[in-house]
Amino acid sequence: MNQSSPGLKEAMRNVPSSVALVTSRDEQGQPHGMAASTVISVSVDPPSMLVAVNRTAGLYPVVQATKQLCINFLAQHQEHLLEAFSRSDMRAQRFTSPDWADVHSPNSRRLPWLPCARAVVFAEVDQAVPYGTHTLFIARVQEVALPKEDAAQRPPLVWLGGRSASLAPATV
Amino acid sequence: MNQSSPGLKEAMRNVPSSVALVTSRDEQGQPHGMAASTVISVSVDPPSMLVAVNRTAGLYPVVQATKQLCINFLAQHQEHLLEAFSRSDMRAQRFTSPDWADVHSPNSRRLPWLPCARAVVFAEVDQAVPYGTHTLFIARVQEVALPKEDAAQRPPLVWLGGRSASLAPATV
Repeated sequence: MNQSSPGLKEAMRNVPSSVALVTSRDEQGQPHGMAASTVISVSVDPPSMLVAVNRTAGLYPVVQATKQLCINFLAQHQEHLLEAFSRSDMRAQRFTSPDWADVHSPNSRRLPWLPCARAVVFAEVDQAVPYGTHTLFIARVQEVALPKEDAAQRPPLVWLGGRSASLAPATV
Repeated sequence: MNQSSPGLKEAMRNVPSSVALVTSRDEQGQPHGMAASTVISVSVDPPSMLVAVNRTAGLYPVVQATKQLCINFLAQHQEHLLEAFSRSDMRAQRFTSPDWADVHSPNSRRLPWLPCARAVVFAEVDQAVPYGTHTLFIARVQEVALPKEDAAQRPPLVWLGGRSASLAPATV
């Protein structure tokens, strides 16, 4: 093993993960979102998810106030959506893609979501646990949406070493 | 999207994840472990990880009592280690593979670990948050170990749809 004390960041670059776009809507009806690789399911009873959010993220105060969030697990063909969420100078382009549904629906119950994502989970925050730089939002699942058959054949986006990795076709 | 209300389990089958073997050692020096796909990093400051553990798991009371855990993120060639951790009738075979180090070291500071894993994180539980059927262990990172160069070339194990998936060679 590497003897020069490696850090946690270096370790996590070695570990594959899914990528999700987590969205919410502020009290003025404006959509907000962030890209996250730290999203897990917690418990099947009650059905619940956990999202770790840096408290410097623009999404943080919105979720903290409204308790509503939507987790969109990306397919590989949706990787192009990530750039706008990783650059603050592209904030205005975050929800302009036709891939998004219910972006401007201030009166809609639905948060902005991606009908062709691998899986979409709408959830309501039940507990917020601050830890270090982040807050862990534990959220009760309200609704799950899965893609129609054609979109379900599209492989998921896998993140590894700071970039996307492809799954071998035979296993998709 | 699928209109017949799909469940959280069905959604998570559509989402790729890493697989870790999480280990600990009880006060009698015996090793314990479980397979987990719900492991994330929480915060870089302080360096910390989160593991969601079902309270029916044999590992739960051990970590709750000792606060010590070790997270071994598996490489693809280590998939054979999983079976013993998923079957209670194979409990006695869980740590018999020569892949494991420090299995029987009651006086060692080190928990059982896999020197050829993609990444190994030794951590001490700082907070335990019960939620539903699970407890979320938030643990402070004490030491990180990465594989030597030859093992670092081995692709990680990716879990999708209840089985392992291969990464395309070009991206490994």
